[in-house]
Amino acid sequence: MRAARLHEYTDEMGDALSIDEVDAPEIDRSGGIVVDVEGAGWCQTDNHVVEGMWEQYMPQDLPMTLGHENAGTVAAVGEEVTTVAEGDQVICHPVVTCGKCRPCRQGEDMYCEDVAFPGLSRDGGFADQLLTSERSVIPLPDGVDPAEIAPHADAGITAYHAVKKAVAELVPGDYAVVVGVGGLGHIGIQCLDAMSAATIVALDVKGEARDLAEELGAAHTLDPSSEDVPAELDALTDDRGVKQVLDFVGADETLSLAPDVVAAGGDHHVVGYGGHVHEPAQAMVNGEFSYRGTLVGQYTELQELVALVEQGDVDLRTTRYGLEDINDVAVRLEHGEIEGRAVIVP
Amino acid sequence: MRAARLHEYTDEMGDALSIDEVDAPEIDRSGGIVVDVEGAGWCQTDNHVVEGMWEQYMPQDLPMTLGHENAGTVAAVGEEVTTVAEGDQVICHPVVTCGKCRPCRQGEDMYCEDVAFPGLSRDGGFADQLLTSERSVIPLPDGVDPAEIAPHADAGITAYHAVKKAVAELVPGDYAVVVGVGGLGHIGIQCLDAMSAATIVALDVKGEARDLAEELGAAHTLDPSSEDVPAELDALTDDRGVKQVLDFVGADETLSLAPDVVAAGGDHHVVGYGGHVHEPAQAMVNGEFSYRGTLVGQYTELQELVALVEQGDVDLRTTRYGLEDINDVAVRLEHGEIEGRAVIVP
Amino acid sequence: MRAARLHEYTDEMGDALSIDEVDAPEIDRSGGIVVDVEGAGWCQTDNHVVEGMWEQYMPQDLPMTLGHENAGTVAAVGEEVTTVAEGDQVICHPVVTCGKCRPCRQGEDMYCEDVAFPGLSRDGGFADQLLTSERSVIPLPDGVDPAEIAPHADAGITAYHAVKKAVAELVPGDYAVVVGVGGLGHIGIQCLDAMSAATIVALDVKGEARDLAEELGAAHTLDPSSEDVPAELDALTDDRGVKQVLDFVGADETLSLAPDVVAAGGDHHVVGYGGHVHEPAQAMVNGEFSYRGTLVGQYTELQELVALVEQGDVDLRTTRYGLEDINDVAVRLEHGEIEGRAVIVP
Amino acid sequence: MRAARLHEYTDEMGDALSIDEVDAPEIDRSGGIVVDVEGAGWCQTDNHVVEGMWEQYMPQDLPMTLGHENAGTVAAVGEEVTTVAEGDQVICHPVVTCGKCRPCRQGEDMYCEDVAFPGLSRDGGFADQLLTSERSVIPLPDGVDPAEIAPHADAGITAYHAVKKAVAELVPGDYAVVVGVGGLGHIGIQCLDAMSAATIVALDVKGEARDLAEELGAAHTLDPSSEDVPAELDALTDDRGVKQVLDFVGADETLSLAPDVVAAGGDHHVVGYGGHVHEPAQAMVNGEFSYRGTLVGQYTELQELVALVEQGDVDLRTTRYGLEDINDVAVRLEHGEIEGRAVIVP
Repeated sequence: MRAARLHEYTDEMGDALSIDEVDAPEIDRSGGIVVDVEGAGWCQTDNHVVEGMWEQYMPQDLPMTLGHENAGTVAAVGEEVTTVAEGDQVICHPVVTCGKCRPCRQGEDMYCEDVAFPGLSRDGGFADQLLTSERSVIPLPDGVDPAEIAPHADAGITAYHAVKKAVAELVPGDYAVVVGVGGLGHIGIQCLDAMSAATIVALDVKGEARDLAEELGAAHTLDPSSEDVPAELDALTDDRGVKQVLDFVGADETLSLAPDVVAAGGDHHVVGYGGHVHEPAQAMVNGEFSYRGTLVGQYTELQELVALVEQGDVDLRTTRYGLEDINDVAVRLEHGEIEGRAVIVP
Repeated sequence: MRAARLHEYTDEMGDALSIDEVDAPEIDRSGGIVVDVEGAGWCQTDNHVVEGMWEQYMPQDLPMTLGHENAGTVAAVGEEVTTVAEGDQVICHPVVTCGKCRPCRQGEDMYCEDVAFPGLSRDGGFADQLLTSERSVIPLPDGVDPAEIAPHADAGITAYHAVKKAVAELVPGDYAVVVGVGGLGHIGIQCLDAMSAATIVALDVKGEARDLAEELGAAHTLDPSSEDVPAELDALTDDRGVKQVLDFVGADETLSLAPDVVAAGGDHHVVGYGGHVHEPAQAMVNGEFSYRGTLVGQYTELQELVALVEQGDVDLRTTRYGLEDINDVAVRLEHGEIEGRAVIVP
Repeated sequence: MRAARLHEYTDEMGDALSIDEVDAPEIDRSGGIVVDVEGAGWCQTDNHVVEGMWEQYMPQDLPMTLGHENAGTVAAVGEEVTTVAEGDQVICHPVVTCGKCRPCRQGEDMYCEDVAFPGLSRDGGFADQLLTSERSVIPLPDGVDPAEIAPHADAGITAYHAVKKAVAELVPGDYAVVVGVGGLGHIGIQCLDAMSAATIVALDVKGEARDLAEELGAAHTLDPSSEDVPAELDALTDDRGVKQVLDFVGADETLSLAPDVVAAGGDHHVVGYGGHVHEPAQAMVNGEFSYRGTLVGQYTELQELVALVEQGDVDLRTTRYGLEDINDVAVRLEHGEIEGRAVIVP
Repeated sequence: MRAARLHEYTDEMGDALSIDEVDAPEIDRSGGIVVDVEGAGWCQTDNHVVEGMWEQYMPQDLPMTLGHENAGTVAAVGEEVTTVAEGDQVICHPVVTCGKCRPCRQGEDMYCEDVAFPGLSRDGGFADQLLTSERSVIPLPDGVDPAEIAPHADAGITAYHAVKKAVAELVPGDYAVVVGVGGLGHIGIQCLDAMSAATIVALDVKGEARDLAEELGAAHTLDPSSEDVPAELDALTDDRGVKQVLDFVGADETLSLAPDVVAAGGDHHVVGYGGHVHEPAQAMVNGEFSYRGTLVGQYTELQELVALVEQGDVDLRTTRYGLEDINDVAVRLEHGEIEGRAVIVP
């Protein structure tokens, strides 16, 4: 079968992956599943993997097939699989978990002590087929196209996971700020709108992104390139500050907003990455705010997100590309030229 | 009356305050209270105030009487005071609050929108008398000496407040690390021990501090000057990491422990300050941990801490000094020469 | 001034109250406030007070002016009032609190150890003027008519308070049931819809009530007089049960729904009253569900509800009546003939 | 092998079970495990199963081997078992779960949609061997005797589970009441003491039980047969009431304590069963308290309890009996003649 593989780390996105002919995956455990991939989202993290930025956090044997936002049709199942069958359409939670360790038992799939992360630590979904497991797939509601929903497998639940933490702290009258209205941010705004009555303020330097934010539920938008964000937020909140910041960018300049905009007792959720937090402890003490790192969401959160999609609360903006266009997609994302989320349809 | 006042910011602790003769405070509101100070703790924050480190966070008109950890006997009460009377012994929550704003209504005394902070924003308790209010005092249980309990007014509830957040995340089998077994840390260990069944590991470069930690409930102690803290904690926790770190030091080197020691989903509570957090966002995302700034506790938390003291769960180590020794105390704390907490007895 | 007063407990609603000429209230504390009443909602609890049903729970000296859902214009303020002034339009939280006791400090206004409840334990708002306090009033947003918002003072925050507890347990994909779409229920549905993405099912025997429920956000409605509620809910939830039941009726037959409809780990919130809970402990153990009594909400929750009203998320259905019609209103409510909420405009 | 089986429901405990010779269990799934039983606790629920009280809640095919509190040594493992091996000593969580359904994914083992409950819905541990699964066993710390720890498999985690919910609501200064100091209650007191700083009051009609309670951490004890419990609790709590009641008895008279003793906002946890809750909704509304049904705890809670045992915080009182004494044990428990917990050692 065909697979888009990384042979060596590089900063040249135009040469990122090569389309290789490789053996199709085979089920090696009673709960294993092979999926015919029908949609695999390209994520900013794929660019970071290509650059070698995940090597220190994750074991990676090159060459490796990338692709961690996958959906498709079940092609084969292990002998003890009972909840899905060949032919079922599914979305794949990004990691394959043991189901036995304490974190798995607590629903913390990402903390599994024997985790595999297709696309980051073993072969992923930019290929005709993907090896995953029964514990990683969720059947799709009728009428949902795998290629349309694939990015929810990672971008979606990452945004949802962060929003769920924020929503637990928000009451009507509170303000929430979404930093960056891209692949994750535009999902985050919709989740916030569906799950809370807080007032949403979206920040983005691009005018179309701000327009999209308003369309999707933001009450206010700000352009950090031309507006004084802390001053505007002080004005909006009567100097009370913002209860929750969802930072889908994670650059130095967005991370440094917290001391000036977060209300006492509030949180700055670090979802995007690339920059550094650099603040005096005294600022964190005096403002009693937190920087909360936030990772991909849980399997059960993906179920919840699928419910939101099914009831029409979250609408994903995607553009489709063939497997052969994959390096072009990598370049475009680097240049901020992707509309919504790019989905590879092998 | 006598009052130890700061006339100008200085790094010379030996010249920090001068003992002035000033007018005694007068009650100007129906809920006002004047307390004869019988104990006022000297805090690391007093050194920071002397150095001018709080000027940017707090309005300060010099000269100003310092002292924000106060206890004593009620000398006079405003006309609508009903819950305490002249002659009652009380401990004073550090701030004076309006009782009307939304944060006050939610118990968040430190976030009061019309707050006064005696010793930081107006005259404090290193004096014969202190002006405070009915909403700021808690009657002492019988037999508790104001000079013995005074440091709980700030050091105590700051430690308690941080511990209470940590305890909410701890279950039996989890590990909690206390960084720094000084004024706050030795209270923090006792609160942790009383309120959770987690295993406590204490870090301090001083041998006596580590001995005290073990006496007060730490199961393990580590010396960061000679031991590899992350490696030791990995060994203790079977590589699972520490669920909660309570950083009562807040120096660069203690703040940088988090990525190496905090378990996924865990927290590094920033209580002490002086240093900076400086970490890549990717580390926070990958480890899904938080830096949580934490401030002085609430009035109701001081009630809870007084209950812990009353039932014998928390024992404070104090050394008493006269008002005239106050600059000497400032110097000694700077040099790490204070045993337990220094209390000024005017 | 005029006041509608209860002289003796009775089951005859037609003779419930008499319109008396009484002295206007006078401010007796520094934080006191007199409000010119412009709207006072009539509540099912008023019928219960008339019947003597609250005598055992609340000290009541007859004759007493009823009315605990009040809004109007500030007519006079005590000498230390700073947050509102004569002429300001306000909604009144139903109780007058001390602001000093531990429950007040925790935001639990209803648990105040020195509480007064105008309309239940002292003179209320079915009168030209009402004595309350600065801690009990919330300024209205511009353009909000006191008579329109008055019922939120009690019906509104009672519904909101229960919904807020339920929302904390609800995630997308979960089902919530609202029992009774009357004064409280129709607010509850709107709050649920604004604050969560759960699927709402409304139960009411009246067709118009079910129509209103659908208009306000219920995805499904059931008629308990003709449909098998547990069977229908099992079908809707794939036998998983309902996570949260909000019982605004509280009759024997609605309270007994829990064992058959509440999902494991879920809650049946008891808001309406009149009936009894009567269940074997084994049913509660086996289904691990709770009956959670729920009272009037907090002052800060009333602020949150006012924010919901201001942003258009909650719309109250009211009908206005003069003070002279008050016994007629009592009779009509008894007969289920009030559309939305009846508001007395003195 | 030998197995103590129920052939028909009966109220005659002396004839409850017969010791039959049956086939040893065989592993039929890749994650299956057979355990040589070395200790199996006899529980009040066993009496209830014998009486037929669980027939309506649980599918039961008679004859069936009882016994749901099991510990022993792994005798055989399925082909994909990786975390334990033949010869390992383990304690068995009472239910066998699928690991795939949403409740399993959330750690809610008891809500598993494909659950088996050895001893209640299929053959249990009053036998030489027990069939269970890898997801149900926890390796024992060195030096822990299976027969000593077996009752924690059900009595222990049921008490722990209820206590954990209570602890989340308790702060220093609060009061918690333990009703019934028997098999569950004496564990509950120790868990409360280890995990909170609340003041514990224990209720039991037996003097030795009250003595044990004091030895294990209760600050006060009351004898409901001779003392006015609500009056005594009012005196102890300054009329504030008890924040959390843990009712390990669940009889009519213990369940009816709530309105008189539970503080506003507090909970009455229903753990024991046999009686009924019968209260007016108005009492629950006025006191804003909850009746919270509580079931067996989670697998991860059993891990936490094993940690408490390992660190010496919980000490179980047991008496050992042979398999042949099993009906005698049933009779003795019925008569309240068992000291601590009876453990069958086959």
